[in-house]
Amino acid sequence: MSTTKVAIVGASGYSGQELVRLLLRHPHVAISCFTSRQYAGKPVTDIFPKFRGLLDGAFVEPKIAAIIARGAQAAFLALPHGVAAEYAVPLLEHEIKVLDLSADFRLKSAAVYKDFYEHEHPAPALLARAVYGLPELYRNTIRKADLIACPGCYPTSIILGCAPALKRGLAKPHGIVANSLSGVSGAGRKVSEEYIFPECNESARAYGIPKHRHLSEIEQELSLLAGTELKINFNPHLIPLNRGIVSTICLDLAKPATTDDVLTAFRDFYKGERFVRVSKALPDTKNVQETNFIDISARADARTNKLIVVTAEDNLTKGAAGQAVQCLNLAFGYDETEGLL
Amino acid sequence: MSTTKVAIVGASGYSGQELVRLLLRHPHVAISCFTSRQYAGKPVTDIFPKFRGLLDGAFVEPKIAAIIARGAQAAFLALPHGVAAEYAVPLLEHEIKVLDLSADFRLKSAAVYKDFYEHEHPAPALLARAVYGLPELYRNTIRKADLIACPGCYPTSIILGCAPALKRGLAKPHGIVANSLSGVSGAGRKVSEEYIFPECNESARAYGIPKHRHLSEIEQELSLLAGTELKINFNPHLIPLNRGIVSTICLDLAKPATTDDVLTAFRDFYKGERFVRVSKALPDTKNVQETNFIDISARADARTNKLIVVTAEDNLTKGAAGQAVQCLNLAFGYDETEGLL
Amino acid sequence: MSTTKVAIVGASGYSGQELVRLLLRHPHVAISCFTSRQYAGKPVTDIFPKFRGLLDGAFVEPKIAAIIARGAQAAFLALPHGVAAEYAVPLLEHEIKVLDLSADFRLKSAAVYKDFYEHEHPAPALLARAVYGLPELYRNTIRKADLIACPGCYPTSIILGCAPALKRGLAKPHGIVANSLSGVSGAGRKVSEEYIFPECNESARAYGIPKHRHLSEIEQELSLLAGTELKINFNPHLIPLNRGIVSTICLDLAKPATTDDVLTAFRDFYKGERFVRVSKALPDTKNVQETNFIDISARADARTNKLIVVTAEDNLTKGAAGQAVQCLNLAFGYDETEGLL
Amino acid sequence: MSTTKVAIVGASGYSGQELVRLLLRHPHVAISCFTSRQYAGKPVTDIFPKFRGLLDGAFVEPKIAAIIARGAQAAFLALPHGVAAEYAVPLLEHEIKVLDLSADFRLKSAAVYKDFYEHEHPAPALLARAVYGLPELYRNTIRKADLIACPGCYPTSIILGCAPALKRGLAKPHGIVANSLSGVSGAGRKVSEEYIFPECNESARAYGIPKHRHLSEIEQELSLLAGTELKINFNPHLIPLNRGIVSTICLDLAKPATTDDVLTAFRDFYKGERFVRVSKALPDTKNVQETNFIDISARADARTNKLIVVTAEDNLTKGAAGQAVQCLNLAFGYDETEGLL
Repeated sequence: MSTTKVAIVGASGYSGQELVRLLLRHPHVAISCFTSRQYAGKPVTDIFPKFRGLLDGAFVEPKIAAIIARGAQAAFLALPHGVAAEYAVPLLEHEIKVLDLSADFRLKSAAVYKDFYEHEHPAPALLARAVYGLPELYRNTIRKADLIACPGCYPTSIILGCAPALKRGLAKPHGIVANSLSGVSGAGRKVSEEYIFPECNESARAYGIPKHRHLSEIEQELSLLAGTELKINFNPHLIPLNRGIVSTICLDLAKPATTDDVLTAFRDFYKGERFVRVSKALPDTKNVQETNFIDISARADARTNKLIVVTAEDNLTKGAAGQAVQCLNLAFGYDETEGLL
Repeated sequence: MSTTKVAIVGASGYSGQELVRLLLRHPHVAISCFTSRQYAGKPVTDIFPKFRGLLDGAFVEPKIAAIIARGAQAAFLALPHGVAAEYAVPLLEHEIKVLDLSADFRLKSAAVYKDFYEHEHPAPALLARAVYGLPELYRNTIRKADLIACPGCYPTSIILGCAPALKRGLAKPHGIVANSLSGVSGAGRKVSEEYIFPECNESARAYGIPKHRHLSEIEQELSLLAGTELKINFNPHLIPLNRGIVSTICLDLAKPATTDDVLTAFRDFYKGERFVRVSKALPDTKNVQETNFIDISARADARTNKLIVVTAEDNLTKGAAGQAVQCLNLAFGYDETEGLL
Repeated sequence: MSTTKVAIVGASGYSGQELVRLLLRHPHVAISCFTSRQYAGKPVTDIFPKFRGLLDGAFVEPKIAAIIARGAQAAFLALPHGVAAEYAVPLLEHEIKVLDLSADFRLKSAAVYKDFYEHEHPAPALLARAVYGLPELYRNTIRKADLIACPGCYPTSIILGCAPALKRGLAKPHGIVANSLSGVSGAGRKVSEEYIFPECNESARAYGIPKHRHLSEIEQELSLLAGTELKINFNPHLIPLNRGIVSTICLDLAKPATTDDVLTAFRDFYKGERFVRVSKALPDTKNVQETNFIDISARADARTNKLIVVTAEDNLTKGAAGQAVQCLNLAFGYDETEGLL
Repeated sequence: MSTTKVAIVGASGYSGQELVRLLLRHPHVAISCFTSRQYAGKPVTDIFPKFRGLLDGAFVEPKIAAIIARGAQAAFLALPHGVAAEYAVPLLEHEIKVLDLSADFRLKSAAVYKDFYEHEHPAPALLARAVYGLPELYRNTIRKADLIACPGCYPTSIILGCAPALKRGLAKPHGIVANSLSGVSGAGRKVSEEYIFPECNESARAYGIPKHRHLSEIEQELSLLAGTELKINFNPHLIPLNRGIVSTICLDLAKPATTDDVLTAFRDFYKGERFVRVSKALPDTKNVQETNFIDISARADARTNKLIVVTAEDNLTKGAAGQAVQCLNLAFGYDETEGLL
């Protein structure tokens, strides 16, 4: 099978690092360049010593010409929102497929983007072209896409947790409350006082309530699943672990159901999905660490008529880089699990 | 001022250890005995080396006669539920005030106890005599009580978070969803595989959904606050920190309100309370660690008509031993903050 | 290439779990059985949920007949010392190669074994047959061995750190001081109070000084490297991380040398070794986590005439299961890195 | 007893925060001002929310005139080295006693300072006036001092660990090897990539080998204790805990001795010291967390003729702020333990 050359643009953050880890194991992908403004010219293994002995090469300046010159057929954009769009436009013009890990192309509506991100969308014309890169829901369109907006960690954990319940009519669309617990790498490799070790260790706190940016795409996708416009409550928390997200989602049962009913429906909905594991046991982030799995369980609460769904994923894998590789596999016709098991 | 002699029964767990820490600083309390079946005869500092240089004495067998012989005027029971009642009965007969940290006397109803704890209540006749030891709600009855059932970590964090909203009619009583994140000491000093370090570190998980035992007392107290029988959803999580609980509670706003409205009402409700700190900033467990404070903030979400309350406390202090000392201060006429600031 | 069938005996501990993780990626190995006395009959994924979707099968009783019946050509023994020998004897009689992760066959001398392990060696006749499973030092004998005593985490980190210095005469053999810092999984999946999360988190402590059991094999191997009988100081510490060991070793320089001299000699000594990474930068456990690498650096201190070597490895991979797989690859003629990169 | 007014200069770092925590409990001290360039004008509790309800006041600009105007009789300098001296000179001129937590006045020799800190000493004339603020060794001179150079975390843990051995002739002065493990707050509240949570958590590493800056004062003090000029090896490590240092020190026994001999000598040496706890059990950082204790144990190793001393302290308390308060108590005639038990 032929090899696909890929660029990793913004390779020096945690998502970039995870992309490298995964792609090194991918039998059909060659990394043609790693870009980093900050580290241009430095060997990649100086910044990521864990890859010593596994790869060569240096970071290059994030210039379109350089990416093209190195023959990239696809580019992963691990860039801040707003910046990603600047790269996507010229890359697409040069027929390089774009796997964007930022939020720039996840929303259908430039108005919603502006409402949540507080600036004009940088490339609204591309919004209609972009496909939401959640393979479990959009597998076929991802196969044909050239601009794939890979959802981030919170949206993936909540959307996949709600999809069976909403799509199968187990739960009502309104009144959903989602609480998420994220490890600190979810904030990226961000250097600020709030993220230094003594501030995060032995600390747990809610933040970003009530209008976290990612709420916009969560509501967009849940509305599509439910077939009606809905709004939810989303309460993210920061907890002291490196990697992992737990989301616990409360929905109103549409009709009486037992936990077994619900689990059966979830198992059926995700039948054949290689990266979704439905189980009776409540999930634990440690079981998905450094994997592309999302673990899902659920409970029906007859006392309150609620359905409680709990999901766990690795925010850097299924919640970022792994999902992007899964999309790449689809877009280039590889087995969906290449590099991911 | 006279000194009160107290016994710590079941002194070798984490709540017992925290009681020792607090009482060592209390100017009007002397610890007359530490009991521990497991460690009877051993110096307390062999088991708690952190107290070396600060206290003498050995653990004694947990026998009523021994507690009486040592002149205890009050006894803290840091025992498993079911066992605590066995001690409370004879201690009360000997006019020793009981501060029970277990769940044995928190419920008004022996039937609810049986429903949640799955055995008959061991001393139902005492239920009516017991006072729920939450000073912010029951200060005056605690002052006159001789059997004080100190609420545990989850109930304290949720009840104090909801009290202003329910009592002042800011929120509707039905449909409350509480998610709590607890450090591992919340499970006590329990030796089982699920609590060893490699299983808890880099792990976050929900558990005990949908019917955690402490839900019973949470619903009892919220119902009393709301003036109507209610049921809630309670989703506890275990996260990798030693001490601390965050509870994030979603309620339906009874009428439109802003975040400022809500915070003003909360500040007013808790005016004069020394251990409740209401602030605009969302709380963080690290700010309450080893203190008796509970930090509370709230947000009104106009998009969904919800009130989101977030609280943080130390599960071993305000969530256990600190609260018990606060109750002792009330019951013996000391300043409520003695030993606690 | 043909497939080798292997048994994992004692598969339910952390080393067993890591063997499973590595062997699942090995193209030429099939796991023929997982044994566990405690979990016999239970699906492996009930105990290790992280492998759901990746493997089937249940634990079986650890019986020799069962291991043979399932066609194992090699057996990994992830058992306590003393017990491992009971399995090794009959397995070898049935021409099943043994990769022992315990300490039972690492020492040449039954007397030294008794001195450090405080009981008679259970199978002294096999000591001469066993090969010390450190491929960097004994590659050729491992290739021909049928009883391979894979060294554990501390010995690997110290022996590989000292080997170039002693073998090349950079350092004097006497007066070596080794301090090691180990993550908690180094204690195995051991359920005891000292290893529960609240006792290990926010805790760092030395233990086992001055005569840790593994000192015996460290001294045996360093003596062989130095060509003279030597004794060292070994000070192990327990620190709050899951996986990883750092060893910092002080030796007396045999003659003046700079840091560059030393690093050059180390690089030369380990030239061609795929799992030893010598670098100027001091190593960090996070760079070797879940890898079979050992990272090594060194400093010459002209002020004190000392050579300080620092190594980092994952105690469960290069310090246990990874090393055993590396030995299996040698013993069965596979590429040494199969399953390990 | 009269109250002493103190200024905390550089109050916004971790040592400053710990000074506040301790001084709030001190019955004879009032904090007259908190200075912080970065936070001037902001309420102290905005930056340290854990003190809400316990103190009022805002940070002020770190200006000498302001400190004087507020009536400070003593000033704690929690400033970077080099900067501290700029404050010490004018404060002393105004007869304000200086408790310096930086390294500026710990060395007797401006030449050694330049060698280790790589710039000229900013106030060499004051070096002779300064007293090394280690009460266990210099109690009487501290009582009369007006410039007290409080030793930091590593030096305290190593010097107090070696003092009995060197002073009593148990160990030889040459060939000492000290390995220390420090929590991340030891680096101060420093915002840089290497200290963000995901880089420190699940990470352990050596650093600063072979010539850490604090080695200079360690060697100065050990030389004074031994009565001969000596050099040592000092290997610091960074481990994932907030607070705490373990130092494990290997010395050559001067003559044969048992562990009991050594412990007896250590106990005798520290008889009457309130903050030094000598025990048979090896120390653990968790037992000294947020206390001013240093826990010490030792082992004699007959196999290698070594004495191994292990110490544990809280780097922010006995290793910084607590020690400074202990010195203040001496310098102002208070009981040495005020505010510290």
